[in-house]
Parts: sequence; structure tokens; C-alpha cells
Amino acid sequence: MKVADLVKQIEKKSSVLSVGLDPVLEKLPRKFQGQKSPLYDFSKDIVDVTHKYAIAFKINTAFFEAYGHRGWEQLENLAHYIKEKYPDILLIADAKRGDIAHTSKMYARAFFEQMPFDAITVNPYLGKDAIMPFLEYHEKWVIVLGLTSNPSAWDIQLIQEIDTRDYIFEKIFKYGAWWGDPDQIMFVAGATFAYKLQQIRHIVPNHFLLVPGVGAQGGSLEDVMVFGLTENYGLIINSSRSIIYASSGDDYAQAAEARAHQMQEEMAHQLEIFRKSKRSF
Amino acid sequence: MKVADLVKQIEKKSSVLSVGLDPVLEKLPRKFQGQKSPLYDFSKDIVDVTHKYAIAFKINTAFFEAYGHRGWEQLENLAHYIKEKYPDILLIADAKRGDIAHTSKMYARAFFEQMPFDAITVNPYLGKDAIMPFLEYHEKWVIVLGLTSNPSAWDIQLIQEIDTRDYIFEKIFKYGAWWGDPDQIMFVAGATFAYKLQQIRHIVPNHFLLVPGVGAQGGSLEDVMVFGLTENYGLIINSSRSIIYASSGDDYAQAAEARAHQMQEEMAHQLEIFRKSKRSF
Repeated sequence: MKVADLVKQIEKKSSVLSVGLDPVLEKLPRKFQGQKSPLYDFSKDIVDVTHKYAIAFKINTAFFEAYGHRGWEQLENLAHYIKEKYPDILLIADAKRGDIAHTSKMYARAFFEQMPFDAITVNPYLGKDAIMPFLEYHEKWVIVLGLTSNPSAWDIQLIQEIDTRDYIFEKIFKYGAWWGDPDQIMFVAGATFAYKLQQIRHIVPNHFLLVPGVGAQGGSLEDVMVFGLTENYGLIINSSRSIIYASSGDDYAQAAEARAHQMQEEMAHQLEIFRKSKRSF
Repeated sequence: MKVADLVKQIEKKSSVLSVGLDPVLEKLPRKFQGQKSPLYDFSKDIVDVTHKYAIAFKINTAFFEAYGHRGWEQLENLAHYIKEKYPDILLIADAKRGDIAHTSKMYARAFFEQMPFDAITVNPYLGKDAIMPFLEYHEKWVIVLGLTSNPSAWDIQLIQEIDTRDYIFEKIFKYGAWWGDPDQIMFVAGATFAYKLQQIRHIVPNHFLLVPGVGAQGGSLEDVMVFGLTENYGLIINSSRSIIYASSGDDYAQAAEARAHQMQEEMAHQLEIFRKSKRSF
């Protein structure tokens, strides 16, 4: 996929929604308990009711690894199911990998060859070496962790450099923009720091930002869209728990659909305001 | 396991060797090609010939993930095999995980409950939140990436902070020492920056360091031991490729054993010098 394909999806669906799939067995409706592939079955149901409103699905690999090789097999099956049935929707592996080049190459094989992901989240602590092996794949993205949504993001990411006075997260956005163009690199930018999206847009005016932290983690959808939208929209806003656990009863699918629809409508509203503001220039 | 158990192993074997298991199918001797579980079978052979010289086995998870759920199943079987047959040897998952607490918890389940690893490498870019869920397990270690062995480690890790003038890697060692004591936290410190081990020892005099980069990546064993050894030894020096690929012929096991033995003898020599230097105080 390329940026142009994402723009097409955003305009067609009036949405920048990514549905995050983080299934925890104990939290799933009772009918999934004791099933053979509960993570797959549940996630598939969520995908099938939310795809109309979503431009991306983000699978959090930890939630599958926690169930061993049977979990990994469900992860594989889910990735293949989504990419075959909904080829226009961006499929993200939220795996936060990253190692020396020799090892990152093997991670790239796992997510881009063994499985049909379009994008993978990568941790930049090891620098460029950790990123490059993923960029050798055509029409795939590396989503570099820039500014994350958790409280202790401050520990490292908000340290200020002595020479440039840049914060570490700003360095990462600068590096990332050198490492690859918007068809190769995106960034994670947490919604809990929405006001910082202005600063980030100054550094990467055209790169897509994957924004977690709206909903369960407390970030504001409106703030993110006001500060983050750009010429090619440039935003993918993820919501996981508030959609997939909208109801823990038998109506989990309808509740998830309703919640995704509601988010899409809020997004459509902000997109409309954004379009009007552009016309007024 | 605890530090005291590691010290016992080091003294018993006169070794600080970790054997790294990074099997790449195409590089394995011909007899493994086309087998059902080649990564497991090969790694098991390596483990069985090198355990006499090793105080740790470090499994690089990327090399198993690259082969999908069948790779993951071999990873599980290998971890169980090693821990059952060689319970006194430290078993490290070199997985470089790390995410918000809600997700790190799931990674901890995967490596500390589903599999019997004693330790896991964790990336500190997200700060304390990424580390804490792993520390809830008794007698398990988090090995925090401090200073890595790859060329682009400079990109982030050698940025200097404006207020304290600390380098980022120094901040990480300081944070890590607050997050947990030597029975809970270790650090990755690359051999390619051996001269920096003095600086690191100043910050963490008693924490164990896992040192990759000796051998294929060019670090010097002698330098690492001279600069890194401390009261409780505090070093685990890893070698992967130079041991497991010592020969690509049918004598792969003998060659791996010989190489591990040779490294152990070099380590024993340095340990002897270290002990003498301590007595002379």
C-alpha cells in the first residue's frame, strides 16, 4: 500500500479509525471460553462488523504471544483473513520490534513474508540499524515509536539534547524523516500528548501518525484531529479497548459496531471542519 | 534464579560464557534441511555440547518467529528442554520487548509463564511502565537495553542530556538501578564499546551486564573482562555466530564445542588474573 491508497480509504469512509485488536481471553464473552481458537474467532467477528468504519486494523502481537504457539497460529490466521477479505484496509502489526540489523531482518521476514502485514511498529532505541531491514520491502511501512501514550514516556522521550535543545522524541521524528519518505515511514504519536502534535507536524508535515491513547487511555479525539490533520490527512487514530470491549455480553459485536460507528461519525465531523478550513484559505 | 546462583555457576565452570542461539535455517548443516523441527534439533545439539562451558543460553526469538507458529513451537520446546535438562544455567529470551504496562504484562506472561525463561531483554524507550510488569515475577530478571553493540547505537544512546550532561545510555543505567536491585535487573552493554564499561561500572557497580558483540561483531573479550568484572563477577559474555556456525559441516557440534571450550579457557585465564588482582589489595 501507499499513502495514496490510505487517502482514498479516508475519503471513501470519512474516517481515520484504526480498530485495535488486543483480545484477552478472560475478558471475552462467555461463548468463547473453552473454544479452540477464541482469539481468532472473536477478532474476526470484530473485524467483520467494524470494517465499514475502519481504515486500519492494528493487531497487538503480545496478546497472541501470551497464548504460546497456538496464539501465534491464531495471529497468522487473523492476519491472512483480514488481508484477504479487506485488502484495502491497512494491516498493522503492533509488535514494537527492533534489534541489530542481522536480527531485525528476521523480524521483517516474520511480519512481511510469513504474514501479510502492511506495517509494523518499530522501537528506535537502537537507531537506524533496527529500522533499515524493514524498509527493504516494497509498499510496506515502518511505524517508528516517536512519542508514546504512557505516563513514563517522559523518562527517555522528553529528555532534552545539550547541543540542539531537541527533545529525544523530536530527534526521532527528524531521524525518521531522513530514513524514509511518507510512503515508507510513519510514526507513533500518543494522543495523551495531543498538544505536542503541533510541534511534531512542524518536523514531519506529511508523514502519517498512528495515534493510540484515545479512549481507555484518556486522549481527546478532537484535540488530536485539530492538531494533527494535514494536507494528506496524515492521521490514523487507534482505539482498542473501547471498541472491542464495548460490551462483554452476547451483544459484543453490535456494541463494537455501534462504538466504531460513533467514532467514525465524530471523525467525519472533524474532517468536514478541516475541509472547510482549507477552503477558506 | 538469583545472583548467588550465577556466582556459583561462574566459579564452578570458570566461565562467564553465554551461548547465543540464533539459528538460520539456510545456514544449518545439510542434514537439517527438510526436517520437521530443524531449529530445535540443531539448537539442542549445540546446547548438549556446550553446556559444560556455559553459564547462560540466550535464545534470540526473532530467529524462531521468522518461521511462523512452527518456529514458535520450536522456541517453546527448546526453552523447556534447556530448563529441564540444565536448570542451573540461566535461560535468556533475547526478545527486546517493551510496551505500555497493559501490553508488557502480556509479554511477561508469554516468556515467564508460557515458557520457563529466567530473563528477558527489554527495550527502555517507553520508560518504567515497560519494565515493571516483568518485575512482578519472583526470581526472574529484566535485562534492560543500555548500550547496544550496533553501529547506530550512537543515534539515540549517545545523545547528551542538557541538565545533567548524562548520555542517554547513562540515564538508562541510573534508571535501571532505581527500578530494581541486581537480583531483578541486568543490562545489555555492548562489547564494541568496551572502554565505556568503566563508566557503566561507576553507575552500576553490582548489576550483571549481558555483553553481546564479542566475536562476529568485533568486540575484545579481554577488554570486556578487564573493564567489566566486579565483586560478584557481574558479567555474562555472549557469543552466538562464532560458536553455532564454527563449522557448517557434519562436525558442527564438535566445532561448536571446541570454540565454546576455547572461549571458556580465555575467560578462565582472565578470571584468574582478576582473582589475583583482588588478593593484592
